[in-house]
Amino acid sequence: MKIAILGGDGFVGWPTCLHLSNAGHEIHIVDNLSRRWIDTELGVQSLTPMDSIQERARIWRQATGRTLHFHLLDVAKEHERLKAFLLEHRPDAVIHFAEQRAAPYSMKTDRHKVYTVDNNVRATHNLLAALVETGIDAHLVHLGTMGVYGYSSVGAPIPEGYLDVEIDTPAGKRPQQILYPTRPGSVYHMTKSLDQILFQFYAQNDALRITDLHQGIVWGTHTDQTRRHDQLVNRFDYDGDYGTVLNRFLIQAAIGYPLTVHGTGGQTRAFIHIQDSVRCIELALSDAPERGERVRIFNQMTETHRVRDLAQLVARLTGAEVAFLPNPRKEAEENDLIVRNDQFLALGLDPIRLEDGLLAEVVDVAKRFAHRIDRSRVPAVSAWTKEIAAKVDRDPERRSLRPAS
Amino acid sequence: MKIAILGGDGFVGWPTCLHLSNAGHEIHIVDNLSRRWIDTELGVQSLTPMDSIQERARIWRQATGRTLHFHLLDVAKEHERLKAFLLEHRPDAVIHFAEQRAAPYSMKTDRHKVYTVDNNVRATHNLLAALVETGIDAHLVHLGTMGVYGYSSVGAPIPEGYLDVEIDTPAGKRPQQILYPTRPGSVYHMTKSLDQILFQFYAQNDALRITDLHQGIVWGTHTDQTRRHDQLVNRFDYDGDYGTVLNRFLIQAAIGYPLTVHGTGGQTRAFIHIQDSVRCIELALSDAPERGERVRIFNQMTETHRVRDLAQLVARLTGAEVAFLPNPRKEAEENDLIVRNDQFLALGLDPIRLEDGLLAEVVDVAKRFAHRIDRSRVPAVSAWTKEIAAKVDRDPERRSLRPAS
Repeated sequence: MKIAILGGDGFVGWPTCLHLSNAGHEIHIVDNLSRRWIDTELGVQSLTPMDSIQERARIWRQATGRTLHFHLLDVAKEHERLKAFLLEHRPDAVIHFAEQRAAPYSMKTDRHKVYTVDNNVRATHNLLAALVETGIDAHLVHLGTMGVYGYSSVGAPIPEGYLDVEIDTPAGKRPQQILYPTRPGSVYHMTKSLDQILFQFYAQNDALRITDLHQGIVWGTHTDQTRRHDQLVNRFDYDGDYGTVLNRFLIQAAIGYPLTVHGTGGQTRAFIHIQDSVRCIELALSDAPERGERVRIFNQMTETHRVRDLAQLVARLTGAEVAFLPNPRKEAEENDLIVRNDQFLALGLDPIRLEDGLLAEVVDVAKRFAHRIDRSRVPAVSAWTKEIAAKVDRDPERRSLRPAS
Repeated sequence: MKIAILGGDGFVGWPTCLHLSNAGHEIHIVDNLSRRWIDTELGVQSLTPMDSIQERARIWRQATGRTLHFHLLDVAKEHERLKAFLLEHRPDAVIHFAEQRAAPYSMKTDRHKVYTVDNNVRATHNLLAALVETGIDAHLVHLGTMGVYGYSSVGAPIPEGYLDVEIDTPAGKRPQQILYPTRPGSVYHMTKSLDQILFQFYAQNDALRITDLHQGIVWGTHTDQTRRHDQLVNRFDYDGDYGTVLNRFLIQAAIGYPLTVHGTGGQTRAFIHIQDSVRCIELALSDAPERGERVRIFNQMTETHRVRDLAQLVARLTGAEVAFLPNPRKEAEENDLIVRNDQFLALGLDPIRLEDGLLAEVVDVAKRFAHRIDRSRVPAVSAWTKEIAAKVDRDPERRSLRPAS
């Protein structure tokens, strides 16, 4: 297949490019390199030393003989160039990662909120309108998030995209299937809820073939393909904006800093290993919907954990201590989360378990690159509201933990 | 109250400004005048001769002694200037009309789709982020549309915003109230579905006070206040993009052209008179939600009609003939529509009925300004898909009705 990967320079995008290139597909990376610009803005860098996209593509070619075509293109801003790209290369599938993907970054200031909404909504909508206008019948695979559902669970298992409801009519109750109602908890998550509505419309009006993958928190760094050469290494974010909770625990353990749990740590989240993530994308590609079919929605996750249990797990592996800090997010203190992922299991996914893979992350990544850690970047500082920001800032324990800068 | 009216130069915005100014409020019109630019783009003009906003404001002052403050500002593009405006004038309420509001215009080409999404989503989100950032606790009243629900009715009355559902849990069925699921039928309507998600998030995260008015098709031209001087007249659109079905029937009748019904005319739509529309906005202002309350949603409509019944009504009043043409929209041929509007009735709305008010429109507007009609602009030409465009274009009856240009 000829596959366009929008956002192919990012954390999940890059290993997806390698995985699908290795499987024999022709890969076109489309990226505006915004994630690298945000590194510059925040003054942070990947823990793993990461080369330019051009250099990575050169190494891949040297290691495998395969080509990764790179197109510097801003999907959100360059609608005409996007159409020209589609018409020239006529991809069979388009994988869409081209969105700002950190919840804390999306909540930093109004500028970051506006940027996240503008970039994400325009990227998705430009792509949809361009597919219709060019008449290219590519299968669109989009990376969404489990976070669209919100985390104040009603105690019900979250189904894969749709909910059966009964509506009262004069003739009695009538069953109907609706998009599972969303309740996003950040501006970032909200943009993925907006995407759902865009997809629903374009599948209905223009018979676009769309798969939306509601992904959990991705953990792990290496895949079989990124391991093939040191310079193919994936990025590893540990800063307070882009670092996921697990990555930040690993880094805190590596530098002898307490693992900082926000609130009670009773938040339950869904997880998936990066190797399973790229495998799921390949499975989704192999199972494309027909024209006229509704949007196909998968929950792309393999297990759920409470944040405080994760902290205990990392503490057991590393001997680190656990510290409880005020939560900068506005969210339920405790929530349950039961998620259906029957579709990927039926397609043959055999998950990598966190309990089995975490030690390798500690040794191969956190300890190996510990000398590159900038301690001042580990704390999460983006607060969800001004009131929370003031409270978090006054907390004595947080102040005592703050590294000298 | 001090009230900012975003989009105060538009079709509902302008009479709202006059109505609320007359009621003694301090009115700040914020508009980028984009609707006038679209007139220029399409080569169309309001049937009623419409002065500049500055001239209209001057006449209003002369007629009433009251001032309408005008601010030329693009809410979608000028986030910093929007914040500066809010901080300088600190409105008690913001009424938000600043969105592209024609479904056929939103479906013309990919450029129009992209413009509609960019403009509408950014306008709404910029406003929300600016209210949070400036800390201004204004009541936000937004004009939405009945069209977010789609028109393939399930036979159930459409409630005011929320739906009670039961969700299966391990402990049995649990009741939950969700946003009524949307199924928008055009890119324009879709943007109002996106707005709903934006409002839900900002009400929940930042306790913004928001009222969303899901409006039906507005008919009628004059209100008590626009009648006070010829130069205060409201705009009247009859072209295929911005003219509503009723306006186009009135114009077709006035020029002796058959009333063109799309498809079977079995589409049922909701309607409201412009005078009732401005009255509803005033009622919504008087009934603001508290901080922390969920978004308050009203259905702003007073009656429903099938399109073919409307055509018959206009035909009876004017002697015009009715012609059936292929439908350029992708929609159900026939649909029922039952809508709850209990909240506005409870607040004291006493609706103007179409049956009673339509003759005045025929005489005071359509016949009076018939000499200004450009016949070539009446047909609706924006098709929902390329396949429909080809079919509509080939139709012999449509070709025979096409005016010589």
